[in-house]
Amino acid sequence: MEKIMESGENRNSYNWDRLRTEYNPMATDYMYVMTCSREDTFKHSQGNLTPYGNIQISPFAGILNYGQGLFEGLKAYRGEDNQIRLFRPELNALRMQRGAERLCMPAPSVDQFVEAVKQTALANKRWVPPAGKGTLYLRPLLMGSGPTLGPGPAPEYTFLIYACPVGTYIKGALNYVVDEKVHRAMRGGTGNVKSISNYSPVFKSSSEAKGKGFSDALFLDADTGKFIEEGSTCNIFVAKGNLISTPPLNGNILPGNTRKSIIEIATDNGYQVEERPITVEELLDADEAFCTGTAIVVTPISSVTYRGNRVEYTTKAEGATIFKKLSEILIGIQSGVIEDKKGWTIKIA
Amino acid sequence: MEKIMESGENRNSYNWDRLRTEYNPMATDYMYVMTCSREDTFKHSQGNLTPYGNIQISPFAGILNYGQGLFEGLKAYRGEDNQIRLFRPELNALRMQRGAERLCMPAPSVDQFVEAVKQTALANKRWVPPAGKGTLYLRPLLMGSGPTLGPGPAPEYTFLIYACPVGTYIKGALNYVVDEKVHRAMRGGTGNVKSISNYSPVFKSSSEAKGKGFSDALFLDADTGKFIEEGSTCNIFVAKGNLISTPPLNGNILPGNTRKSIIEIATDNGYQVEERPITVEELLDADEAFCTGTAIVVTPISSVTYRGNRVEYTTKAEGATIFKKLSEILIGIQSGVIEDKKGWTIKIA
Repeated sequence: MEKIMESGENRNSYNWDRLRTEYNPMATDYMYVMTCSREDTFKHSQGNLTPYGNIQISPFAGILNYGQGLFEGLKAYRGEDNQIRLFRPELNALRMQRGAERLCMPAPSVDQFVEAVKQTALANKRWVPPAGKGTLYLRPLLMGSGPTLGPGPAPEYTFLIYACPVGTYIKGALNYVVDEKVHRAMRGGTGNVKSISNYSPVFKSSSEAKGKGFSDALFLDADTGKFIEEGSTCNIFVAKGNLISTPPLNGNILPGNTRKSIIEIATDNGYQVEERPITVEELLDADEAFCTGTAIVVTPISSVTYRGNRVEYTTKAEGATIFKKLSEILIGIQSGVIEDKKGWTIKIA
Repeated sequence: MEKIMESGENRNSYNWDRLRTEYNPMATDYMYVMTCSREDTFKHSQGNLTPYGNIQISPFAGILNYGQGLFEGLKAYRGEDNQIRLFRPELNALRMQRGAERLCMPAPSVDQFVEAVKQTALANKRWVPPAGKGTLYLRPLLMGSGPTLGPGPAPEYTFLIYACPVGTYIKGALNYVVDEKVHRAMRGGTGNVKSISNYSPVFKSSSEAKGKGFSDALFLDADTGKFIEEGSTCNIFVAKGNLISTPPLNGNILPGNTRKSIIEIATDNGYQVEERPITVEELLDADEAFCTGTAIVVTPISSVTYRGNRVEYTTKAEGATIFKKLSEILIGIQSGVIEDKKGWTIKIA
C-alpha cells in the first residue's frame, strides 16, 4: 500500500492533482485506537493516537468470525481559507451508537467520538488535500475484537479511526441497473445501521452491474420488490417539478448524514421534500435523480436500467438542475465558501 | 485467553473432565495460514503451519470494513481406539467454495482445504481430547484481508485455520422462542452460505431470548413469517410418527453437514424424510423436534414458545426417541464405535 509522502516530506511537494480522481487506500501518519471490555463499555476508556500500521487481532475475534463490526465515514475539508473543517461529526457518533446497540456492542460517547475524530484529523493534518483537490477521509471502525468461539458478542471491543486522502469516488454521473433478485436490507435487519454485514452480501450485485458497464446496482425493498431503497453505498433522491422525494427511514434505509443535510438544504431553498416510498416507475418518470453519501457527496444519476429498458436523465451542467443547486450549497458549506448558518461545521485548524 | 497446557506438558496431565462442559476460546500450538491475491486465487498458493497467535491485518482490510469473510467449522474426533478422525471435511471445502463465489472471494481447492485441515489437526494432535471428553474444533476462516477503501472485493485473501478443544456447546436440551420480528435470511441473501454477515445481525435476538431464559431464538422466513427456518447456529428437524421433516435448501437455509448426514442416516434407518416448508403450527404439533450442527451435533428441543404459548416436547432418555437413535449412530460413526460403511470419516492418526 502506497504512502503518498515520506514522513519528512512537505505536503506542498506532493502532486495533489493526481489525487483528484483517486479513491484508494493510502497510509497516513497516525490512527486512533481505544479499547474496552464488554462490561466496562467505553466509559473509562482512554484512547490514543498511535503510528498508522497493521493491527494485531486474535483469530478468534468476533469481527473475523461473526461480523460484529460497524463503520462510519466522514471527511476533513480544507477550505480556500486554508482552514480545516469537519462536517456534523456528532451525527456519525450518534449513528455509531445506534448501530452498536443493534449489534450488541458498546459505543464511544458522542464526546469521545468527536474528540477522537478531531485528534485523528489533526495528527494527519498534512494529508488534508488543498481546497478543491480532495478531502481527508476519516474511517471510524467499531469492532468486536475480543475472542469468542461460539457466535455471540465479543468480550472486548476496539474503536479505531484511520485517515486517508481521497479524490472523487464516482467519476461523472451514475448509471444504475435495478437488481430485482438481491436486496440490501430486510425488515428487522441491519439496513439502517452501518453494519459491515450490509456490504459483502451485495458485492456480487455490484460486481455484476459493473461487469455490464453500469456504475452499480440499485436495490428494491425485499417485501414487495416495488419500491426503490438505495444503491450499495448511497441514498437516492428523485425530483419532479418542485417536489424532491427520498425513501423514508423505515428501518431498511441508511440514515445518511448527507441525505439529512440535503433534505434540510432543499427545504430551506423552497423545495417541497417528502420522505416516502417511491416506486421504480416514479424513479423512471422523474425529471432528475441523484444520490447522496459521504463518499459520493451528491452525484447525479444519468440513467436507470430496469428490466432491460434504459431511461436517461438530463445531467448536463447547463440549466440549473436541482442536484447542482443543492450540491453547490452543501459543498460550499463544507469548504467554508458559503457561510455556515446552521452550525454544521467545526473548524479544527 | 487461556492456553490449557504449556508446550512441554503432556496431554495426560490435563484434567480433560473439566473441558466436557466448556466451549470457550483456548490457544493451541499451531494455526494454518495461506494467502493469495484476487487475481491468483489460491491456485499457486502454498500454505504453512505457523505458531498460533494474533494475526496482523491492515485497518483497511475488507473483512474489517465490509464483512468480506466466511467461516467453516468441523471437528477432529479421538475414538475409543485412540485414532483421530475427521468427518466429511470435503463438504466443508465445497461449502466454502460456494460461499466464496457468493461473496466474490477466491477459495482453496477441495484438496488444499482438506490437506490444510489435516495438517492443522495433526499439528495440534495433543489437544484432541480423549474419547468421550470432547473434540478438537477446527475453524477455517476465509477473509478479504487486503486493503480496500471503497466497498468491494479486497485485493488479497487469507485462508486461516485455528484449532480449539471443545466440550458440549449446548448443555441439555434447547428451549426456543420464535422471533417474529427479526429474520436470519432473505431471498437472494447469504443465508445459505457461512458468511460472517449472517451472525452479528441476530446477536440481539439471541441475547434477548437468553435474557428471558430461552436457549436461543428460532427464525421464520422473511417472506411470509409462517415457516420455520433455523436457529442462529443450527438446522431444525421435526418428527411426527415415522416422518422426519426439515426446511428445504431454498436459499435461506444453511446446508449443514450434520443436517445432510442425519437425513442420510434417517433414510437408511427406515424413516421417511422430507425436505419441505414447515409451518410453526406443524413444529408445535410435532412428536419431537431437534437441531443439528457441527457445534451442537444433534440436540433435542425441549420446548418452543410462540406468541407467549409454550409447547413442551418429550426429550427424556427413556423411550427410543428418534433424536436419540439418529444421534447415537452419527456420534458412533464419528468416534469410530460404529463401522463407517459410507466413507464419511478420514483417519488421520
